[in-house]
Amino acid sequence: MSGYVRNLAVAARQAQSVIAACSGAQRRALLEDMAAQLLEGHVSILSANALDMQAAREGGASNATLDRLLLDAVRVQGMATALREVAAQPDPFGQITRSDTRPNGVQVQRQRIPLGLIAMIFEARPNVTAEAAALCLKAGNAVLLRGGSEAAHSNAAIATCLHAALRNAGLPTAAVSLITDTAREHVLELLQLTDLVDLAIPRGGESLIRFVAEHARVPVIKHYQGVCHLYVDRAANSDNALALLLDGKTSRPGVCNALETLLVHRDIADAFLPAALAALKQRGVQVRGDAVTQAFDASVVAASDADYAAEFLDLIIAVRVVDSLDAAIAHIQQYTSDHTEVIVTDDAAAADAFVRAIRSSAVMVNASSRFNDGGQLGLGAEIGISTTRLHAYGPMGVESLTIERFVVHGSGQVRHPNLLSSPIQ
Amino acid sequence: MSGYVRNLAVAARQAQSVIAACSGAQRRALLEDMAAQLLEGHVSILSANALDMQAAREGGASNATLDRLLLDAVRVQGMATALREVAAQPDPFGQITRSDTRPNGVQVQRQRIPLGLIAMIFEARPNVTAEAAALCLKAGNAVLLRGGSEAAHSNAAIATCLHAALRNAGLPTAAVSLITDTAREHVLELLQLTDLVDLAIPRGGESLIRFVAEHARVPVIKHYQGVCHLYVDRAANSDNALALLLDGKTSRPGVCNALETLLVHRDIADAFLPAALAALKQRGVQVRGDAVTQAFDASVVAASDADYAAEFLDLIIAVRVVDSLDAAIAHIQQYTSDHTEVIVTDDAAAADAFVRAIRSSAVMVNASSRFNDGGQLGLGAEIGISTTRLHAYGPMGVESLTIERFVVHGSGQVRHPNLLSSPIQ
Repeated sequence: MSGYVRNLAVAARQAQSVIAACSGAQRRALLEDMAAQLLEGHVSILSANALDMQAAREGGASNATLDRLLLDAVRVQGMATALREVAAQPDPFGQITRSDTRPNGVQVQRQRIPLGLIAMIFEARPNVTAEAAALCLKAGNAVLLRGGSEAAHSNAAIATCLHAALRNAGLPTAAVSLITDTAREHVLELLQLTDLVDLAIPRGGESLIRFVAEHARVPVIKHYQGVCHLYVDRAANSDNALALLLDGKTSRPGVCNALETLLVHRDIADAFLPAALAALKQRGVQVRGDAVTQAFDASVVAASDADYAAEFLDLIIAVRVVDSLDAAIAHIQQYTSDHTEVIVTDDAAAADAFVRAIRSSAVMVNASSRFNDGGQLGLGAEIGISTTRLHAYGPMGVESLTIERFVVHGSGQVRHPNLLSSPIQ
Repeated sequence: MSGYVRNLAVAARQAQSVIAACSGAQRRALLEDMAAQLLEGHVSILSANALDMQAAREGGASNATLDRLLLDAVRVQGMATALREVAAQPDPFGQITRSDTRPNGVQVQRQRIPLGLIAMIFEARPNVTAEAAALCLKAGNAVLLRGGSEAAHSNAAIATCLHAALRNAGLPTAAVSLITDTAREHVLELLQLTDLVDLAIPRGGESLIRFVAEHARVPVIKHYQGVCHLYVDRAANSDNALALLLDGKTSRPGVCNALETLLVHRDIADAFLPAALAALKQRGVQVRGDAVTQAFDASVVAASDADYAAEFLDLIIAVRVVDSLDAAIAHIQQYTSDHTEVIVTDDAAAADAFVRAIRSSAVMVNASSRFNDGGQLGLGAEIGISTTRLHAYGPMGVESLTIERFVVHGSGQVRHPNLLSSPIQ
């Protein structure tokens, strides 16, 4: 361990005390200036990105990778807009969430404070540099950013703009620290800094997330997969079911909240499946199904167990006809990734039973899986989605970058009032 | 890895689904029956404890250890009472904590659900077996208990009583699984079960906690130390300050919320320190202080840096006279263990500044450090205290054994309404 990352983390931790001493108005103004700096610096950002894009193309990167890496004027504007939106959010720092007076007259409150120092470890998507920084700072944290080597120039150019805003406000640039040497050993070092880093958030492919989870001593919140299910109940409104199916599978197949498996109650299969299979086929979706499903459409490929466990991230879907609500629940419990599960039904009791039995980060009744998203659920921007049942579960916004602690006000109360009056212990 | 613990964890995880399907009333009745079973089984519990106590005495255990290990009729009654209190608490499982309707008409709620499977790793204190089980079950979790070998017979006898209650209710005894083979390799195995264990909570000496933190892949919430500070401000009420000092240092010196360092503003030192030092001496407290403190009382030993960092857990206190509120804050920020910090002052602005600058799990204004305790702060029983800024910070009650997730109700809303109407993708 060279100490390179430790030194950065120590400086970032010290910078966090300064950020934490800023008022909500100051943090808001900082983020608004960061947005302005990104727009002012867009030429340098786009030039830097062009270098990354050229290297990626020469390295044979896929179209999907190139698309994730690309910045254009619209995306830079998008970054600035996201920062302004985070700036405008309510300030969670110092918020009193609960207040209670105890029998002895002591007032007990819970108060939100920043986690402290966040480590963001991500791939591609240079916009994460700006958005993660904004979310962390809004809540009074400092952030250590370790982006992918493929976006090195882009991330550095963005960080330069963010630093300009910090300097304008007389704040330490270490509050947004970019780990520019992306060697894996530095990620390893970062993940051991239990005395400095309060939370590490990995975002990217499964390989990166597994690496972080395997090696981290610091707390990690993550999600691996979104194997999201849509269950069409016997009491479902078929039009709703079809709309949710197509929105969930085909609107953006490569995202974590896209549907991967369709479950259909046998009592509604005759009425629902033919139209559903036809609509999926029309949209270029390959259907892999059980024998019952195959009986509706000979082009349906036989589904294997691996298909029901799969996160296709593509125009492929696994289908199964189930005997009952309980069978649907049992299937989901077997294959769930704890991300998002959907039931379509007009039977309130069935909906309640489904919600009760499902433990995923988000459960939808008659609404698309595509709503499991910070912006859609009202959090504003999200720093990531958690499928870890600790601290945050589902999309993580600014508030998830804080923790509640206790603030107690008394007038001299003690636990052992007799102690003072008895002079000998 | 023998798989011994994995097998237990798999069974416990399955049992958790059954517990999670119980109503609040059923879980309440279960805990009340557990209390009854403990009382009915008190003879076997005390006999088992006698075996542990004899072995401990023969092994040369200290008085403090023997006191932590001992069960008598009063303590068994205390266990039963604690279980009844937990039983009577509000049920957090399924609680809707937030509700909001989005612009598109979708209703977004946050709902509490159990974490799942908790691993409790502890030493001595057989009552933890019963209390941890109660807290976990109340919130709908299952629990894996790994107690210390010194309390093996006691823990087994307590678990037997808890199992009787589970059987009476037709519930799987695996919901409260005792790891009876206390070999360290099994703890290691337990701490790797990332697919089964949602949270591990260690309670005991620093060596145990460090071992768990070092080796865990599963999430861990813990506290190492309670280096708690009392700062007597220039605007302090001296009577309150003395009361808080004595309550904090002498009422139970061996606990984590006991005071370890006293800081005194120089402007109040003349008025406060003589009486404070005399009262401490009267109660057998050894004072280690800076030169200014020593000038008040020649019997004061010179304090070293190590003394200001120390958690004495004894009738010893470190004292320092500081120049200002800011100096007190700086001292605390240097030596804090993030546990509990106290300010005594009648100056509201000073109190606010102190609260703002201190990031510990609990900060007290004119109230004793001894209130950083689940029962005292209104949580009911606590499963432990966290000084980890994640998920829970401060005492952890039943609610800390749950996580909020999203429940979304719609009427067929999708993110991309145009998708359905355009037949070709």
